[in-house]
Amino acid sequence: MVPRVVFGQGSFSQLGDILLPKRRNSNAPFIFLVDDYFENKELAMSMPLMFNDRLIFVSAEEEPKTEQVDALVHEIRESFSELPSGIVGIGGGTLLDLAKAVAILLNNKGQAKDYQGWDLVSSPSIYHVGIPTISGTGAEVSRTTVLLGPEKKLGINSDHTTYDQVLLDPNLTKTVPKEQWFYTGMDCFIHCVESLNGTYLNAFSQSYGEKALELCKDVFLGDISESESRDKLMMASWHGGMSIAYSQVGVAHAMSYGLSYLLGIKHGIGNCLVFQHLEEFYPDGVDLFKQMLTKHHIKLPQGVCADLTQNDFDTLINVSLGMEALWENALGKDWKQIMTPERLQTIYQKI
Amino acid sequence: MVPRVVFGQGSFSQLGDILLPKRRNSNAPFIFLVDDYFENKELAMSMPLMFNDRLIFVSAEEEPKTEQVDALVHEIRESFSELPSGIVGIGGGTLLDLAKAVAILLNNKGQAKDYQGWDLVSSPSIYHVGIPTISGTGAEVSRTTVLLGPEKKLGINSDHTTYDQVLLDPNLTKTVPKEQWFYTGMDCFIHCVESLNGTYLNAFSQSYGEKALELCKDVFLGDISESESRDKLMMASWHGGMSIAYSQVGVAHAMSYGLSYLLGIKHGIGNCLVFQHLEEFYPDGVDLFKQMLTKHHIKLPQGVCADLTQNDFDTLINVSLGMEALWENALGKDWKQIMTPERLQTIYQKI
Repeated sequence: MVPRVVFGQGSFSQLGDILLPKRRNSNAPFIFLVDDYFENKELAMSMPLMFNDRLIFVSAEEEPKTEQVDALVHEIRESFSELPSGIVGIGGGTLLDLAKAVAILLNNKGQAKDYQGWDLVSSPSIYHVGIPTISGTGAEVSRTTVLLGPEKKLGINSDHTTYDQVLLDPNLTKTVPKEQWFYTGMDCFIHCVESLNGTYLNAFSQSYGEKALELCKDVFLGDISESESRDKLMMASWHGGMSIAYSQVGVAHAMSYGLSYLLGIKHGIGNCLVFQHLEEFYPDGVDLFKQMLTKHHIKLPQGVCADLTQNDFDTLINVSLGMEALWENALGKDWKQIMTPERLQTIYQKI
Repeated sequence: MVPRVVFGQGSFSQLGDILLPKRRNSNAPFIFLVDDYFENKELAMSMPLMFNDRLIFVSAEEEPKTEQVDALVHEIRESFSELPSGIVGIGGGTLLDLAKAVAILLNNKGQAKDYQGWDLVSSPSIYHVGIPTISGTGAEVSRTTVLLGPEKKLGINSDHTTYDQVLLDPNLTKTVPKEQWFYTGMDCFIHCVESLNGTYLNAFSQSYGEKALELCKDVFLGDISESESRDKLMMASWHGGMSIAYSQVGVAHAMSYGLSYLLGIKHGIGNCLVFQHLEEFYPDGVDLFKQMLTKHHIKLPQGVCADLTQNDFDTLINVSLGMEALWENALGKDWKQIMTPERLQTIYQKI
């Protein structure tokens, strides 16, 4: 779990004070990895830079990649004589995951792909701070950083992945475009539905998942102010991330990983594309999801898988069925009998 | 926040594996501070002791005291050539608070009373693990350890107070006597009511407080199995503790502190004695509380303050009104106009 958290509208102004006692010396910089959406925007101008701190803008157009992590680590090592005092990740799931991975690799040998899996990280990461600017992924609280590697999309899951400090300032989400707000919020909603309907559930994860789901309903189906909605979606993301940290996601995430890997479809919209066709697995959740689509006038892309070859479908199916823990959580120990490759292809063909 | 947590029925069996990598060497013991209720019971027999580890049984009959902390620290320092590898606190709020304070004082000079207040602890505490055996206080998750000092009952509030690891095993609460179960559970229920009705509330604390309150209603007014009830009350305590860690308690706690200080009344029952008379401040909460009393056939002691002198009442009032943050949270910035000493005495006289 994240040991330190600050919450509040306007709390971003506390960042300088939070970082100050963590500065080892004036040669050990803080590296700010920031979504390039904020380049030349007010937020980028108000970073508490000191000494030789470095601001690096990163595009979040594509899912984060292991080679991107390796390149950032190389650049940072080449640029400074000392290890940084810390890494600050500012953005959505892509930036938050990149910053976690960079913090790990700066203090562990080898390449990012070597650590994709469970508990493969031996040395602690360097101090790292996460600041979400969009709500829903749960990346700010999770003990994973999901990366596209040369062979697989898989997380670096370890106790060293988790942020040392998180700053939750709902005001930072004011400028999120509506469709992205919806798709990223649905990431939270969908992983709560998966966690709450999973066989791995216990009372710990259940209590977090139920609260996150309730907050999502308030945000996407309730009648509340924009300010309250930003507060609540940020907390939904937090509790939703806690819920899956101690349980597991399910069918939508397993299938969405295939779409990301083959077609580069981003995680939030990928989940939505899949989830709309999962009424047989999550009837109540899909019903609520369709109400949310209608209320917010969201039209999902169609025919995404229309032109795929059988070879493409085989790739989708292989990547997806490789996520064994997700399928077992969703369907139980006999999941291989329930979710055959043929059945999975039928669902992909609807997308 | 607590960086590591394990949850699950039977998870106590993992304690040995959790402690092993934290053992510095065979001369640096783990000190287990355990509620003496468990002396000669199965739990005490199954402690994962190694090398020169020490098991110390402590009575939880009275509220934890600063001098008790100092005595334990002295005893541990005298007994071993090295600082312990860590402290494990096993019990209710008293034991959990004692263990936190001992872990701080082993690595900080002076006496426990020197650190009562906010952020007075300079050096990190030694590694410490909290294992609750009764649910409701939130001591397992909070960043305070409330101690009776020579002059005041006040917490050592600091980032170093929080446990490094918590183990939540609902099975450990199986043997709690019914009245104690009720009073300690009500500690959680009451601090949630106070937090949710306080002026310090934000969306972070609100989401935790609402979930804890909902779980308390399931446990004390719902119709669920004993096993589910133990799971849920343990999670209620956890979320309730999180809620007040980032907000504040209110009238019941401020008044209950006075009762503890003057009469040695334990925190859980003290809160209940006060809360029953607070319908003007917390009408919905007090109504639910009375339903819970009735459902579980709990008869609160009466006439507790009947024989007090005016001098005694003055002490109660001074200790209670000294808790300025609690009153401001409950009643707003003008609390001194609202809660006069005379009005406070009228409420104490009903108890």
